[in-house]
Amino acid sequence: MTPEPLQATPQRIIRADLSRLIEPGDLLAGLALERFGAEALHALITSGRTASASERQRLAEAAESAGLGPRQRDLREGLARWRPRCDQLHAAADLAAMGRLGGGVLTPEDPGWPQQLKDLGPSAPVALWFRGGEEPEEVSLNRLPGPNRTVAIVGSREVTDYGIRVTAELTEDLVRAGLCVVSGGAYGVDAAAHRAALRTALEQASRSAPGSESAVRSCSAENAGKAPTLAVMAGGLDRFYPAGNESLLREVAAQGLLLSEMAPGSAPTRHRFLQRNRLIAALGMVTVVTEARWRSGAQSTAHHALTLGREVGVVPGSIFSASSAGCHRLLRETPAQLVRDAADALGLVTGAVPARAPSRNPVHPELPIPAGPKQPQDGLDEAQRLLFDALPRRGLSAPGKLSAVAGLPLPKVLAELTRLQRSGHARDVNGQWGRA
Amino acid sequence: MTPEPLQATPQRIIRADLSRLIEPGDLLAGLALERFGAEALHALITSGRTASASERQRLAEAAESAGLGPRQRDLREGLARWRPRCDQLHAAADLAAMGRLGGGVLTPEDPGWPQQLKDLGPSAPVALWFRGGEEPEEVSLNRLPGPNRTVAIVGSREVTDYGIRVTAELTEDLVRAGLCVVSGGAYGVDAAAHRAALRTALEQASRSAPGSESAVRSCSAENAGKAPTLAVMAGGLDRFYPAGNESLLREVAAQGLLLSEMAPGSAPTRHRFLQRNRLIAALGMVTVVTEARWRSGAQSTAHHALTLGREVGVVPGSIFSASSAGCHRLLRETPAQLVRDAADALGLVTGAVPARAPSRNPVHPELPIPAGPKQPQDGLDEAQRLLFDALPRRGLSAPGKLSAVAGLPLPKVLAELTRLQRSGHARDVNGQWGRA
Repeated sequence: MTPEPLQATPQRIIRADLSRLIEPGDLLAGLALERFGAEALHALITSGRTASASERQRLAEAAESAGLGPRQRDLREGLARWRPRCDQLHAAADLAAMGRLGGGVLTPEDPGWPQQLKDLGPSAPVALWFRGGEEPEEVSLNRLPGPNRTVAIVGSREVTDYGIRVTAELTEDLVRAGLCVVSGGAYGVDAAAHRAALRTALEQASRSAPGSESAVRSCSAENAGKAPTLAVMAGGLDRFYPAGNESLLREVAAQGLLLSEMAPGSAPTRHRFLQRNRLIAALGMVTVVTEARWRSGAQSTAHHALTLGREVGVVPGSIFSASSAGCHRLLRETPAQLVRDAADALGLVTGAVPARAPSRNPVHPELPIPAGPKQPQDGLDEAQRLLFDALPRRGLSAPGKLSAVAGLPLPKVLAELTRLQRSGHARDVNGQWGRA
Repeated sequence: MTPEPLQATPQRIIRADLSRLIEPGDLLAGLALERFGAEALHALITSGRTASASERQRLAEAAESAGLGPRQRDLREGLARWRPRCDQLHAAADLAAMGRLGGGVLTPEDPGWPQQLKDLGPSAPVALWFRGGEEPEEVSLNRLPGPNRTVAIVGSREVTDYGIRVTAELTEDLVRAGLCVVSGGAYGVDAAAHRAALRTALEQASRSAPGSESAVRSCSAENAGKAPTLAVMAGGLDRFYPAGNESLLREVAAQGLLLSEMAPGSAPTRHRFLQRNRLIAALGMVTVVTEARWRSGAQSTAHHALTLGREVGVVPGSIFSASSAGCHRLLRETPAQLVRDAADALGLVTGAVPARAPSRNPVHPELPIPAGPKQPQDGLDEAQRLLFDALPRRGLSAPGKLSAVAGLPLPKVLAELTRLQRSGHARDVNGQWGRA
């Protein structure tokens, strides 16, 4: 069928305009939105009229309680920086263009608006542009993951084989468990996460195996048609950035969704990259850093998540690897928790206590984790252990000798010997004892 | 000179006897020592007389407040298990034999007694046998490290190349800093720690380099003649265990010290190995686990250290390595702290806050850690960053355009452009601006 342009309601036009006028994370703009509403703020900015004393007063109060400095509180300052792009407003055309790309814009009033973004308060995005592949946006919007169904996976652009393997295995297990992996579409860890999510979703779709897969199928059923992965971009969704990831990002759009708070045509500036990280942190119920250098955008995403009160999981690595230095830094300097696998990550999502044992065999993921080598002394109390230690491996020895060697009273020795014999630990040969 | 047997004072004879009669970690015995004193307890055990009601009462009270169960509180039970070895007492001969091996026995009354052991309370060792190589014990005793000069390094017997490298580099830096590394003389991590400590001490002794080594030399001077490493054994010091480590343990005895709470001739039973771990934890001001499997003696040593209120450091590794599974378990399930290098470990000893940056370049230990790639935007405030991002890399653009692209008011743009020009970020060509 031919794509329908997203219905250009006044509400959407207004938010689309504001998303072009206001830089991401502009706290004063967010407070103005809360105080005045989108329509009034839009009118004030675009009309060019001077802000009234009462408007300035109301905003200044909100800004002061939000901790903004005297100059940052000034509505006139805000208008001065929001107005310069007024001559670039063409929201109806933007919406039509994005509609042709199978996308559109979401506003907080839309049912599809991700509720976790509310945690950002006044620094929540003005609007959320999305791109879902060459099909009507109504269909692609259905792919938005349900609540508590997202995990952000981030890390460095320079990634090692270890980082790729960690990211891929973690992502595969999370997607199999029905979760959606949120990342930034960048090189390195981001790309590894998106790729693994897409691959796993295709495997599940094409899978028909019974039995052992039932749990997985139930997840995927309950999760049918949901995006296995979301890529949150720092620029407009009319372009793919970085160019080297174009084919990957097209695939993310086709199977999942691309998201951005920037209007089409907006360039991904450094400031927008840093602000983009707060969206990734807010969209994920938990953020996991799989491999990060000492200085990395993943650090900023992790700190955003912690500021939002979200749990942060971090995968450790070799202390000799510069590519894990940022992970170890987070584990030392923040409340981030060490994560070994998807079970650990899910434990953070659900707030469950750490598993007492890893859910996956670290060496052979297909095998259960061994409880460690079984010891013959397992299950023995201390006296029995002392006595078992004293029993000769070869040959035999008399209870009196055992009493001295084990440091146990003779009656105790005689009592415990019969117990050890019953439990198959000791053998009795005419009153002389040895190990069974 | 010919070795002098350690002076066989009554006090030493009594403690030496008790160290043969009483199994390590016997809480009731420790409480009896506190209540009655070593001499009276020795007399009571060896005399064979029945314990008086008042003796039983006094001990039962202490045992009850220590949380022992009704039967465990009974002095008669204790005597029954302490007496069976009375016919094996030959402390004078033991002392003479150990003296010939350059060793002897320490009692809590000796000035050389490690004060950290007091933290063990009633489960402190009855006595501490030592062996310091083929020389008079007075000399080898001088090697005992000063207070706050010990770090315990432990891990699994099965060790990977990673575990060996981690253990060796950590030990080298700690010994260079004048610390004594305490371990258990076992295969794997223990052996790697002892070897690295001995090697580093020899390098320092033979070193005469000036300048950069001054810090090291001052440390080693203040630390002259001190043991670079201590091996705490689970059996008597007349034998070397495990046999495969004999030459290493001989070298530890020659340059450092072997320690054990077991009298000569005592076998290293499993119970004694587990109890030995509490001595390692108590002797180290901090315990560092460098590589440990899911099930490992290092786990028990770490838990002993935490119980004693000591800090525990843990080196992370690959989540795919079964040899690091125990380390990650400790980091998840205990207050143990992640340790990357000697600076981190020393931070735990001194209780210093974690360093904000690793003291050693993870990749090239000889180089300082880089602060990360220097960014042209470093040191710019947010408005300046927005403007710098908006400046074209090639070509020029007008302030009005920059105001729109950056989302900044025109006056602000003009003001910041001149600032950026001064700081060498922007260039002005007849009123058109670009990046410098």
